[in-house]
Amino acid sequence: MARYGPQFGPDITFLGVPRCDWADASTYPDADVVILGAPFDGGTSHRAGTRFGPQYIRQTCYLAHDGSRPSLALRVDGLGTDLRVYDAGDVEMFSGDAERSVRDLQAAVYAVARTGAIPLILGGDHTIAWPDAAGVAQHLGQGRVSMLHFDAHADTGDIEFGSLIGHGQPMRRLIESGALRGDRFLQIGLRGYWPGPQTLAWMAEQGMRSYEMTEIVARGLDECLTEAFAIATDDCDGVFLSVDIDVCDPGHAPGTGTPEPGGLTARQLLDAVRRIAYEVPVVGVDIVEVSPPYDSADITSLLANRVVLEALSGIARRRKDAAEGTTWDRRRPLLEGR
Amino acid sequence: MARYGPQFGPDITFLGVPRCDWADASTYPDADVVILGAPFDGGTSHRAGTRFGPQYIRQTCYLAHDGSRPSLALRVDGLGTDLRVYDAGDVEMFSGDAERSVRDLQAAVYAVARTGAIPLILGGDHTIAWPDAAGVAQHLGQGRVSMLHFDAHADTGDIEFGSLIGHGQPMRRLIESGALRGDRFLQIGLRGYWPGPQTLAWMAEQGMRSYEMTEIVARGLDECLTEAFAIATDDCDGVFLSVDIDVCDPGHAPGTGTPEPGGLTARQLLDAVRRIAYEVPVVGVDIVEVSPPYDSADITSLLANRVVLEALSGIARRRKDAAEGTTWDRRRPLLEGR
Amino acid sequence: MARYGPQFGPDITFLGVPRCDWADASTYPDADVVILGAPFDGGTSHRAGTRFGPQYIRQTCYLAHDGSRPSLALRVDGLGTDLRVYDAGDVEMFSGDAERSVRDLQAAVYAVARTGAIPLILGGDHTIAWPDAAGVAQHLGQGRVSMLHFDAHADTGDIEFGSLIGHGQPMRRLIESGALRGDRFLQIGLRGYWPGPQTLAWMAEQGMRSYEMTEIVARGLDECLTEAFAIATDDCDGVFLSVDIDVCDPGHAPGTGTPEPGGLTARQLLDAVRRIAYEVPVVGVDIVEVSPPYDSADITSLLANRVVLEALSGIARRRKDAAEGTTWDRRRPLLEGR
Amino acid sequence: MARYGPQFGPDITFLGVPRCDWADASTYPDADVVILGAPFDGGTSHRAGTRFGPQYIRQTCYLAHDGSRPSLALRVDGLGTDLRVYDAGDVEMFSGDAERSVRDLQAAVYAVARTGAIPLILGGDHTIAWPDAAGVAQHLGQGRVSMLHFDAHADTGDIEFGSLIGHGQPMRRLIESGALRGDRFLQIGLRGYWPGPQTLAWMAEQGMRSYEMTEIVARGLDECLTEAFAIATDDCDGVFLSVDIDVCDPGHAPGTGTPEPGGLTARQLLDAVRRIAYEVPVVGVDIVEVSPPYDSADITSLLANRVVLEALSGIARRRKDAAEGTTWDRRRPLLEGR
Amino acid sequence: MARYGPQFGPDITFLGVPRCDWADASTYPDADVVILGAPFDGGTSHRAGTRFGPQYIRQTCYLAHDGSRPSLALRVDGLGTDLRVYDAGDVEMFSGDAERSVRDLQAAVYAVARTGAIPLILGGDHTIAWPDAAGVAQHLGQGRVSMLHFDAHADTGDIEFGSLIGHGQPMRRLIESGALRGDRFLQIGLRGYWPGPQTLAWMAEQGMRSYEMTEIVARGLDECLTEAFAIATDDCDGVFLSVDIDVCDPGHAPGTGTPEPGGLTARQLLDAVRRIAYEVPVVGVDIVEVSPPYDSADITSLLANRVVLEALSGIARRRKDAAEGTTWDRRRPLLEGR
Amino acid sequence: MARYGPQFGPDITFLGVPRCDWADASTYPDADVVILGAPFDGGTSHRAGTRFGPQYIRQTCYLAHDGSRPSLALRVDGLGTDLRVYDAGDVEMFSGDAERSVRDLQAAVYAVARTGAIPLILGGDHTIAWPDAAGVAQHLGQGRVSMLHFDAHADTGDIEFGSLIGHGQPMRRLIESGALRGDRFLQIGLRGYWPGPQTLAWMAEQGMRSYEMTEIVARGLDECLTEAFAIATDDCDGVFLSVDIDVCDPGHAPGTGTPEPGGLTARQLLDAVRRIAYEVPVVGVDIVEVSPPYDSADITSLLANRVVLEALSGIARRRKDAAEGTTWDRRRPLLEGR
Repeated sequence: MARYGPQFGPDITFLGVPRCDWADASTYPDADVVILGAPFDGGTSHRAGTRFGPQYIRQTCYLAHDGSRPSLALRVDGLGTDLRVYDAGDVEMFSGDAERSVRDLQAAVYAVARTGAIPLILGGDHTIAWPDAAGVAQHLGQGRVSMLHFDAHADTGDIEFGSLIGHGQPMRRLIESGALRGDRFLQIGLRGYWPGPQTLAWMAEQGMRSYEMTEIVARGLDECLTEAFAIATDDCDGVFLSVDIDVCDPGHAPGTGTPEPGGLTARQLLDAVRRIAYEVPVVGVDIVEVSPPYDSADITSLLANRVVLEALSGIARRRKDAAEGTTWDRRRPLLEGR
Repeated sequence: MARYGPQFGPDITFLGVPRCDWADASTYPDADVVILGAPFDGGTSHRAGTRFGPQYIRQTCYLAHDGSRPSLALRVDGLGTDLRVYDAGDVEMFSGDAERSVRDLQAAVYAVARTGAIPLILGGDHTIAWPDAAGVAQHLGQGRVSMLHFDAHADTGDIEFGSLIGHGQPMRRLIESGALRGDRFLQIGLRGYWPGPQTLAWMAEQGMRSYEMTEIVARGLDECLTEAFAIATDDCDGVFLSVDIDVCDPGHAPGTGTPEPGGLTARQLLDAVRRIAYEVPVVGVDIVEVSPPYDSADITSLLANRVVLEALSGIARRRKDAAEGTTWDRRRPLLEGR
Repeated sequence: MARYGPQFGPDITFLGVPRCDWADASTYPDADVVILGAPFDGGTSHRAGTRFGPQYIRQTCYLAHDGSRPSLALRVDGLGTDLRVYDAGDVEMFSGDAERSVRDLQAAVYAVARTGAIPLILGGDHTIAWPDAAGVAQHLGQGRVSMLHFDAHADTGDIEFGSLIGHGQPMRRLIESGALRGDRFLQIGLRGYWPGPQTLAWMAEQGMRSYEMTEIVARGLDECLTEAFAIATDDCDGVFLSVDIDVCDPGHAPGTGTPEPGGLTARQLLDAVRRIAYEVPVVGVDIVEVSPPYDSADITSLLANRVVLEALSGIARRRKDAAEGTTWDRRRPLLEGR
Repeated sequence: MARYGPQFGPDITFLGVPRCDWADASTYPDADVVILGAPFDGGTSHRAGTRFGPQYIRQTCYLAHDGSRPSLALRVDGLGTDLRVYDAGDVEMFSGDAERSVRDLQAAVYAVARTGAIPLILGGDHTIAWPDAAGVAQHLGQGRVSMLHFDAHADTGDIEFGSLIGHGQPMRRLIESGALRGDRFLQIGLRGYWPGPQTLAWMAEQGMRSYEMTEIVARGLDECLTEAFAIATDDCDGVFLSVDIDVCDPGHAPGTGTPEPGGLTARQLLDAVRRIAYEVPVVGVDIVEVSPPYDSADITSLLANRVVLEALSGIARRRKDAAEGTTWDRRRPLLEGR
Repeated sequence: MARYGPQFGPDITFLGVPRCDWADASTYPDADVVILGAPFDGGTSHRAGTRFGPQYIRQTCYLAHDGSRPSLALRVDGLGTDLRVYDAGDVEMFSGDAERSVRDLQAAVYAVARTGAIPLILGGDHTIAWPDAAGVAQHLGQGRVSMLHFDAHADTGDIEFGSLIGHGQPMRRLIESGALRGDRFLQIGLRGYWPGPQTLAWMAEQGMRSYEMTEIVARGLDECLTEAFAIATDDCDGVFLSVDIDVCDPGHAPGTGTPEPGGLTARQLLDAVRRIAYEVPVVGVDIVEVSPPYDSADITSLLANRVVLEALSGIARRRKDAAEGTTWDRRRPLLEGR
Repeated sequence: MARYGPQFGPDITFLGVPRCDWADASTYPDADVVILGAPFDGGTSHRAGTRFGPQYIRQTCYLAHDGSRPSLALRVDGLGTDLRVYDAGDVEMFSGDAERSVRDLQAAVYAVARTGAIPLILGGDHTIAWPDAAGVAQHLGQGRVSMLHFDAHADTGDIEFGSLIGHGQPMRRLIESGALRGDRFLQIGLRGYWPGPQTLAWMAEQGMRSYEMTEIVARGLDECLTEAFAIATDDCDGVFLSVDIDVCDPGHAPGTGTPEPGGLTARQLLDAVRRIAYEVPVVGVDIVEVSPPYDSADITSLLANRVVLEALSGIARRRKDAAEGTTWDRRRPLLEGR
């Protein structure tokens, strides 16, 4: 199993944060978060291209790549001074061998998780959610991790193209394997025309809670999130956040493999990720399905980069507020004038 | 007058539904809906390209082309088990001969309508709304069909480029010819800088009701729609739904000929189409102005594909609820958890 | 210093309005507004391309270039009959010489302002806000002009790439030079990860009031604007409106150099610009950071074109209502039906 | 019948040459060449978009739009000092009415030709070759004009989409109508899989001479041209040059409606056009099938712009050499060094 | 193992030829050629996207999809009247399981080959050349088939990303397995910076003959081909033609995963394929590495479509000339004039 | 004056070669070549974007970024084992201050040149040729360096946009300043319509030798190069090679600011660069005018990357042959077969 920098393109880290080797914990002794790239698109059922997700998410930003990003909204630097973030490069994932790739990724995620650092994985297609969340559960215990899953699709298929592994099936594998509990599985943003009744019945049996866009529009995203947080934090030791960029409307995120019209705005996604990172105990994150060849002016890669930064900023602010006994008020002006 | 499959590209049907011949009603004896392609862009006043609308709307979807699309939101399969949908291919429409093209299209729409099936026409530029709605009125009676018209533009011009036919004039022709009543003509989403006072005066004389975006933002789309439905269903035998994809903001629908900033989101359009199909008696539908060469990652074609599916799903659900005495509740969760 | 038509491309004016020579006031004796192009991208910190902003903003429109644009929403023709608008072409701005370019642009803006006409400048990168607002203040008096600044970024950097001039610093230069007062400087739409604490401290010292997106989402844009208008019109002689197109979400405005996800919709921006032009005394406008090479189907150029038209329409309506003692009601239907 | 500037976009002329009105010969009394735009794509059998050909060909150039283009190769300024070129704007051509459009265009071409000026028409799809060459023959006499036709396609179809008019049929119409002689019809660059044997038989009967790419590769383009010139100038009063940009390989000219791989390089086309303009008596020119929406970085529009300039430069040099008794030597260095 | 139509998109065949089922020889009893799609990109070392190669190659053509393509150059219809061509749809190839995909593809190719029909496979990445040529050799005998391999790359790597299977290694697997002889392996168009000395040494040991572009430019492609044909037809029973579209220059074929500047022109490739099909006994063909998401205006898909047609036309003409005792002369004019 | 890594994007080196600091010769004591980035587009007269040239040229390659590139054609590794190449990152060049940027770049180039290493500069627009060649001449002596200049344009303008500095003027500045001799200035690939007679006269006075494309086509590029080499190596101490990527046809290099149709193929350029590096004593190289925002699938950046590699490979081979007394034969097969 290879360990190295990015599988594709030049040897870079996420916006210039320090490097580490996930297999050698001594290279990140004080890490709060360790970034892993998962450049895999062998599990995609339609458009490929997500193998370049890690490369693009790491570097799509117009600011200096200096390992620092002070958040205007949260007033913390979740990449620099207020959180220790490392980038372990990519796990080598040959897209032609899903089985080996998934196994190797889980090993890397687990290795990071057991050090106490939060693994943050840059996909790649959604196939990787299986090893991502399973790797964290391997450390925290089967059924001890809840899932907050942002997606247009349920990803609970059984067998596709003759395979148990693929980007339409990770959530089923996670529940079937016992890694995650079905009744601590919260899905947000579903819509469209998949899956059919049989799979929905299986999901219902597992006790899954899915917020389709119709409910989100009717009730408001904030109310739905508050409800979901209550379920997710009930009798569990941490929350895994899995963000499929196609939860956003194709207008906001065209660069993805299976876009479904009628999704969230980028603003809604960023606010939701921020709330999660700030309000619930996040133990793992992945951001998936960014497909650069279908993007327009790199806006989807950039959005994914900001999802990462919102997560980091939220975690940093949560820790800072916990340490200092303060609270963040989203209505407080950035600058109050005179 | 030719009758055949698609005028451009390979011989396909909308997501794999069965074929039929519009001129031979025996090929679709049980049809609820018959899809017709209208690959015409000879009436466009600016960017062309909508001739490829039917080809792209038919096939832009990442799921299997299996003639089935179970709606997560509405819990019906409006393409497969819950509605009988056929695709009659394209009406041959030479873009260089608007007059002949319009005449031939109306003949096809009328042929479908008189069988009792709902014609659903894939444009093409908005020129086709004239033969589309006129073909339905030819069957149901002059003035017996209301119009719900989603568009950034009023399309009530008189003569453009020396012609009475074109994508800026179909609504005028429909009213002038008596096919539709001006006071049952509801326009939603207008904005921008066209037409001028003279045309607006003509429209006012006809008793048209136009919801410009300013009013929609001020009052809310839902309230406006409810009001419009009341007018549309007062003293008429059915509603024709004409959706110009440019009613959406260019960010959500860049692939169109005359984009006008400041429109609806894709989510708003899909919800509106669903409400219409579910709440009022739709007797005809067209979806127009998708111009693939100006699109980005096919997101506009995909949105139009979903407009079709929302319409079909809404109709299916309406019929199912009528048959079973049930009601659809948009606040009901997709999966309720445990 | 050169005076001529557009620096790049053919010799056109904004949608066909009459030409004038800014240096010769006799060529625009009755002007309400004079358009100036500022084709400069030498101050950009990342993606270039805004030098073509004036060319694209002037001509991106699917309607006839006839110097007339009757607004459906406001019922005035702010380009034609209800306002006298001239286009003075571009100020020659060599991107390789920021200092000279900025000096020449200020001279032109001042020349227009002192005739009583409102200068409306088409950027170009945001560097130009310095000469734009300074040129107006040169006429109305130091500190007598407030600023309403729409942007994802504060643009209050000190030195970048060794230069005092650049698109990240104009607002600092305007305040430092005394041209504008810090406590009459209203920023709307800020977000993301720039600037850092040091610069924010400087901004706070100046008494600036910045509405970050979090506050805007929490309170609503309309409430924030109303508050901002009160500050902007307190003890000042006019308001300069500076619109960086990147205040919009990249989904609505991909064609820009430093896109930041999570911004306003196009609809929100257009409504805000309209309110400003209608509700406060605008004395100068610029619209900047449109970078055509990064655009998709020209939708960003088109949005900027509409920002110009909304500003012109709002000004025209404001003057008309003032003259006629009328008021515009945004809830009034375009056409009321029968 | 309308007469005005460009049908689409701003009011510009080809690289800034003076305007004229084709219907009023007094506006171009000394013209050598008059440019006409033919913004028509209603005759296209596949991808549309050529309606924007005139707009793009007129302005796609990175140099100043100053009505001057001194040729490095030929040492004449065929746009400025060495030839009198006017631009009469576009003939209004509604794409939805091919018949009227074709009739109006022929009237304009004839009006120009009878003044003795060379009409140079910017398409538009190849439909326009019929009125273009017929308009010249109307002046010089039926059968008195030869044709040099650069194209991937023979364009000798009979009826397509139920119409005699279209971009696949102009050459048949020209010969059938007697405007041009079949045995003075030279085609260069044909290739691919159209037309079939029946149409080829008709062409053979007319005595047409077609150089398919295989022959051109085998014999060399220069030899083929020399042979073609001999035929074209035998017993005729002038040569019409019709250049379909798809004669070039799609790599060199991607922005066209019916690209056929395996064509000429841009260099070959420019050299061929130059030779024709210099070596034979050109009485009319058109350049067609540039479809900007399918282009990449405007390279196809730019190539078409250069085809126009090569033609103008060649004509200018031919006249200059004739007047001065000189000869142009293509092996002569631009600068000889010391 | 699945057998069905295209794996992605609508159910189409190559330009409308009849369907068949490769597993049921009775569905193509008289076939000369059977087309198979291999929609696999799991073996790609860089950019993905070739999974959509079959879909795009099958339908990218502006002519009617009528199963007929009369060649202007060769005067045969290699798709219709002069050759019996069927399309068996795609072999299901899950990109995440290279091993299974390769095994299934070989079974399908072998099934076709043993009926005597020529298998023509549409890739997909070059991984498929292993099962393609091995499937033919399985029928004709190990070492009895020569290879004419057009490519920028040698594709003779050993292990990449930990796998024996991939698009950089098929040629090594073919030789190592004994399916093909190294000294009947002709490579044309190699260039660039891969592989290194060690792999070249292995290739030399096998007796491979590689024509790098430098030699091709120095000697001329025609001479190189003639030499290669002599080797390929010496002591063998047939020739497999494998065309990697990246043998062409990126200007002619941008839509590919590993473009290498400095390649053949499209014209050269088409002429070479034609010569091969006409001059040597072709027993199998594949055309690979077309990656639509990286293409520009579909010109690369179109080129691949024409490679298929040139191969079919050449085979048809070879058989016709053999049957009729005629010879094709490439200098013969298409139409001779009068 | 700043010294650091890349000015834009992540901190990378050209395909992974070692880093150095140009201002500290001890960081590259054994260097044969030092790469410098010049991310400047402030001198461009039309399309900008070349500021991203260094970033894209450094990383656009599908092979591993491992600091090694064994040339198939030349059988040397000019990036790795056979030449010592370092990358000093970018010289900070603020595009808004051409004067300072040019001064700083020359200092860096001179610093490298005086160590005996060959500076290889990645542009940026062609403005940089002035400091590039002047920096080398500063070391080797005024007039002691010849120039081989590949370009569509002569770049000998005097004043443009009021400035002496710009991408249309570097060659004039080099000659006027005495850095280079006019009669050792060889230009290859000129074409089009610039400059006019006055500038040509100035060039002739300097004794410049310019090979316009017409002469190159008539005589063959190889013959022209041989002649040029003779002049360039007569009474001089080394040759500077300046490659403007627009010397290639826009079909091969669309991603540039001022494309001119009718240029060299990529194959021709690569062969020419190789010959120069192998046959004459190169003392400096720049490759300029790559504008990524106008590129298609990065093919222009890739071509520029290969121009660098051909130069390095040619230099390596020249040194190896000199050391070993061998000669490279371009007709020798890569693999000879058996």
